[in-house]
Amino acid sequence: MKVVGLVVEYNPLHNGHLYHFEQAKKASGSDAAIAVMSGNFLQRGEPAVVDKRARAEMALSIGIDLVLELPTAYCTQNAEMFAFGAISTLHALGVVDYVCFGSESGDIRWLDHLAERLIDEPASFKKRLRELLDMGLPYPRAYADAAAALAGVPAVLLEQPNNILGLNYVLALKRLKSSIEPVTIQRIKAGYHQEDISDVSIASATAIRKRIFSKDSDEEVGISPFVPRSTWEVLQREGSINRFPVDWNLYFPFVLHSLLAMDSEELGQIHEMGEGIENRLQKFAKLYSSYDLFMENLKTKRYTWNRLQRLLLYLLLNLKKNEMQSFSLSEGVPYIRVLGFNEKGKQLLKQAKEVCHLPIITKIPRDPHPMLALDIRATSVYELGLRGGRARAEYAYVPVIK
Amino acid sequence: MKVVGLVVEYNPLHNGHLYHFEQAKKASGSDAAIAVMSGNFLQRGEPAVVDKRARAEMALSIGIDLVLELPTAYCTQNAEMFAFGAISTLHALGVVDYVCFGSESGDIRWLDHLAERLIDEPASFKKRLRELLDMGLPYPRAYADAAAALAGVPAVLLEQPNNILGLNYVLALKRLKSSIEPVTIQRIKAGYHQEDISDVSIASATAIRKRIFSKDSDEEVGISPFVPRSTWEVLQREGSINRFPVDWNLYFPFVLHSLLAMDSEELGQIHEMGEGIENRLQKFAKLYSSYDLFMENLKTKRYTWNRLQRLLLYLLLNLKKNEMQSFSLSEGVPYIRVLGFNEKGKQLLKQAKEVCHLPIITKIPRDPHPMLALDIRATSVYELGLRGGRARAEYAYVPVIK
Repeated sequence: MKVVGLVVEYNPLHNGHLYHFEQAKKASGSDAAIAVMSGNFLQRGEPAVVDKRARAEMALSIGIDLVLELPTAYCTQNAEMFAFGAISTLHALGVVDYVCFGSESGDIRWLDHLAERLIDEPASFKKRLRELLDMGLPYPRAYADAAAALAGVPAVLLEQPNNILGLNYVLALKRLKSSIEPVTIQRIKAGYHQEDISDVSIASATAIRKRIFSKDSDEEVGISPFVPRSTWEVLQREGSINRFPVDWNLYFPFVLHSLLAMDSEELGQIHEMGEGIENRLQKFAKLYSSYDLFMENLKTKRYTWNRLQRLLLYLLLNLKKNEMQSFSLSEGVPYIRVLGFNEKGKQLLKQAKEVCHLPIITKIPRDPHPMLALDIRATSVYELGLRGGRARAEYAYVPVIK
Repeated sequence: MKVVGLVVEYNPLHNGHLYHFEQAKKASGSDAAIAVMSGNFLQRGEPAVVDKRARAEMALSIGIDLVLELPTAYCTQNAEMFAFGAISTLHALGVVDYVCFGSESGDIRWLDHLAERLIDEPASFKKRLRELLDMGLPYPRAYADAAAALAGVPAVLLEQPNNILGLNYVLALKRLKSSIEPVTIQRIKAGYHQEDISDVSIASATAIRKRIFSKDSDEEVGISPFVPRSTWEVLQREGSINRFPVDWNLYFPFVLHSLLAMDSEELGQIHEMGEGIENRLQKFAKLYSSYDLFMENLKTKRYTWNRLQRLLLYLLLNLKKNEMQSFSLSEGVPYIRVLGFNEKGKQLLKQAKEVCHLPIITKIPRDPHPMLALDIRATSVYELGLRGGRARAEYAYVPVIK
């Protein structure tokens, strides 16, 4: 049995994801698919529109065989760390043959070539990156320019978010000396950030989320044309019990409270906090009680929306610098958390248990690994934002079985 | 001009307070009255039903001449510290001749006699107190028993909350070697904690608050019979802009967030946190999302409702042990904050400025005293609980002038 791994957020799972899943199996010639999925908080520093259990259900409904959770410590970080965590999960499992990702370019060769050159972070690259950062460029932009110069490819290729993610997947595979083979499929129809819905059946997750939260009645035709029937049903069900849609507005009061109640020294202990941004955050907390106004006014060229959102998320989760350091993220994930599986997934788990060195977790143990304790904390906080949320949700969680 | 000082919370100001104010001037033969009032959070660890500015207005409306704020560092502590802060304010002002308080006994002599014996905390008293605490008695009960034994008075006298507050006022005067003379008036009609309204015009603040928050339509006749017209008008006005009534339910989500996001070591840094209560709080935070259920289940003989409420308040305000220690509370207040005055109050302030060694604050300075910074923080947090609250309220505050 050939197995393909996918790295996903499914926020929510839509027709584009379905297409990618089908193409991934076809392109790699696989019989089974495993998804590593972000938990309740995502790479852009946002809460997922619906919780991880519901999103695991969506994944199983389209035919994914096994859904694993990417720990919070990885899935809420920059593209490089996110990718490394996800690939280290697939690698550690020991039963994955391919990893397949969508990219704007659809060509694996230049990504592989560039990764080969970047793996040792050559001095010329590091020097150029430093120069560009000192010029005030945001990190993703500076990284793209410096890396493109190294490989002699147009920088614009590396400013496309899925190409850069793809590069990081390939880099992670090389760092782990993994035998997993990378495969890429050209993304179709909808750009990553595209906000308008221009096609009848495929739209970006950003456009779909925009429609979910839209108060504009024109857009109330809904999202059903753009998502599989199963996604639609899960969202309807979760909505009926006030567990969907979830957004930052539900959590912003907690962040405001922390900003008003903490002193700048305490704030400075939060992961990624520094350079005086804590004072700016505290000042703006006294000026804006609306999340969107707060963010719009706060963001700068250097502090992009996503970077700021992640910073606020670290504050919401009370994620400290010393806690992050204690995780040794560069060693890869220390456990594998199972969110759901079908019959074939059950077989894969059985195979994996024979070769995988890491604990495979289906039920929260009494004395969880500190990184797992952060996942538990993230779930408690996520649930706190929901009316009638379940603070002990993580303990009650059993894998979804299809 | 003879001046009487009152220590008040006015939560809200009612007919019983009006009676006490009038009797205080009469009993002491004073021409003017100064009230030291708790700010936005109160001695029982609760948010005030309406903010301090509105409550200062109520006080001026009944004829109080000058309203001063008791700093948060004092007004949210046990009876002893609360009383010491309030009396040190009146003492430092330098223009107060009497302090008048209501008590169940109405007799100053035994209080004075007992305070005289307690001032040096004799060994026999300390030993008895320790024994009673070790037997598991809550502090107020143990203190009452040990103090009563010392003076040969029935312990029941010292279990009455206004007698014990009165004793602490007299003790504070003695500790400060103040020339202010204590006067007491017997409280009438409504017991301190009495919850039923049994009289047509005087009811306890507890009974009035119960009526304010009652969802029982039988009680919707309102509170107007029990409060001065001016109080009624202020509450109506504040209610119309969603600034009344305020209760713990508005703040409990922030406490839950802190309990879920902090580890027990961080919680242990909070003022008065210890003895493993932090673990119990964290456990119960996962079980109850309703404030009343949380409290009802949490309280024990040793951890009374008020003690627990204060603990939660310290957490809400992020008030740390080391911050409290830095205040040197036993030296008395380090500044005098003016909340409002009338023409006579203005004269009193002028007189006070000639004799008072402390800064008299009518407008928040650029570099506030750390204890004043806590008041500013408390106001920001109080406002956060109000829809459309004003995080910068404290800076915009100017004294109410009648």
